[in-house]
Amino acid sequence: MQQPELSILIIDENRIRASIIEDGLREAGHTKVQVIHSVNEVARTIAATTPDVIVIDLENPQRDTLEHFFSLSKVVQRPIAMFVDRSDRTMIEKAVEAGVSAYVVDGLKKERVKPIMDMAISRFNAFARLTRELEEARSELEDRKIIEKAKGILMKTRGLSEEEAYKLLRSTAMNQNRRMVDIAQSLITAADLLGP
Amino acid sequence: MQQPELSILIIDENRIRASIIEDGLREAGHTKVQVIHSVNEVARTIAATTPDVIVIDLENPQRDTLEHFFSLSKVVQRPIAMFVDRSDRTMIEKAVEAGVSAYVVDGLKKERVKPIMDMAISRFNAFARLTRELEEARSELEDRKIIEKAKGILMKTRGLSEEEAYKLLRSTAMNQNRRMVDIAQSLITAADLLGP
Repeated sequence: MQQPELSILIIDENRIRASIIEDGLREAGHTKVQVIHSVNEVARTIAATTPDVIVIDLENPQRDTLEHFFSLSKVVQRPIAMFVDRSDRTMIEKAVEAGVSAYVVDGLKKERVKPIMDMAISRFNAFARLTRELEEARSELEDRKIIEKAKGILMKTRGLSEEEAYKLLRSTAMNQNRRMVDIAQSLITAADLLGP
Repeated sequence: MQQPELSILIIDENRIRASIIEDGLREAGHTKVQVIHSVNEVARTIAATTPDVIVIDLENPQRDTLEHFFSLSKVVQRPIAMFVDRSDRTMIEKAVEAGVSAYVVDGLKKERVKPIMDMAISRFNAFARLTRELEEARSELEDRKIIEKAKGILMKTRGLSEEEAYKLLRSTAMNQNRRMVDIAQSLITAADLLGP
C-alpha cells in the first residue's frame, strides 16, 4: 500500500542529514517532499504548505529549541516524527506529552525513515481518534446537563411534566432549526436574567 | 531520574541480541532484568513475574508470531517495546492498534534500548490516561441516563417534582450505603417487572 500523495515537510539545519531523510523517503516512493534548512521559517512554511506529515531532525538540540518544537507540535495537529541524537527521560516525556508521534533518539538511518514516518502517522491517528471520542463523550455529557437544567426550569415555572418539558424543548429546537442544547442554554440564560 | 525498581522482562530467542538489550538496560542502571529465550513461555512468565515493562525482540518474525504478540499486547496492559528487523505499513498499523508502545523497525543498538524503553513507558502512560478519561466520561454519561430515567419513573408514579425525585434517590442511596446509579438501576428493573 503506497501513500503517493502524502506531502512531507522535512526540517533540518544540517544538509547532510536532511539528504539522508529525503533520500529515505524518495526511495520509499514519496515524491511530495519539501526540505527547509532554517528553523526560523518553520511556522510560516507549515502555514503556507500545510504538509500532511512533518519530519524534524535536530541532531543535538538545545533544550530551548526542543521546547519550541514541542509547543509547535501541540498546535500543528499533524503527525510529527522527530530525530534527535541524544535525550533524557524528561525530554522524552515532554515529547510524548506534546504529541510528537515518533521521537527517535540516536536512530537516524536512511532505511528507517519510511517505517518511522508510517509509525508516526499510525500513532497520530490512534491518538487523534481517542481524543476525538473523549471530546464527544464530554460534550454529550455537558449537553445533557444543560438540557436537564432547562427541563427543570420549564417543569417548575410552567408546571410541566418531565416529558412535556422535553417535548417543548425539542419542538422549539425543530421550529427554530437550532440544536436542543442551544435552546436549553438560551432558556437557562434567560431564567438567570429574569431572576427567580 | 532513575527508575531503579522497574522490573523488565526481555523476550528474545536470539541470545546475542538478547545480550545487547540486557547490556543496554544494565549499563543504564537497571538491575531487575529477566531474560527468557523461548517464545512459548511468554504468557506463563508474564503471569508469574508481573514485569513492569516488556521488551520483545523478534528479529525477522513470521506474520503469525507478530500477530500472536499483538494479541498478547492487548491483554497484558503494560508498556511493551518491540524490536523487529523489517516491517510493512500494515504491520506497523497493527502494532499501534494493539497498543505496542514502541515498535522499532531495524533499530536495535545497545545505547538505544534505554531511551526506547523510556519512550514506551511515557507513551503507554499517556495512552492509558486518555483511555481512562474516556471510560470515565462514558460511564458518567451512562450513569446520568440511568438516574434520569429513574427520576422520570418516580415523578410519574409518585407525582414528585424533579428535585424531590432526585432527593429521594439520593437519600435512599445514602441510607443503603449504595451508589445512586445502583438504586436508580434497581428502580428501573423493578418498574419493568411490575409493568406500566
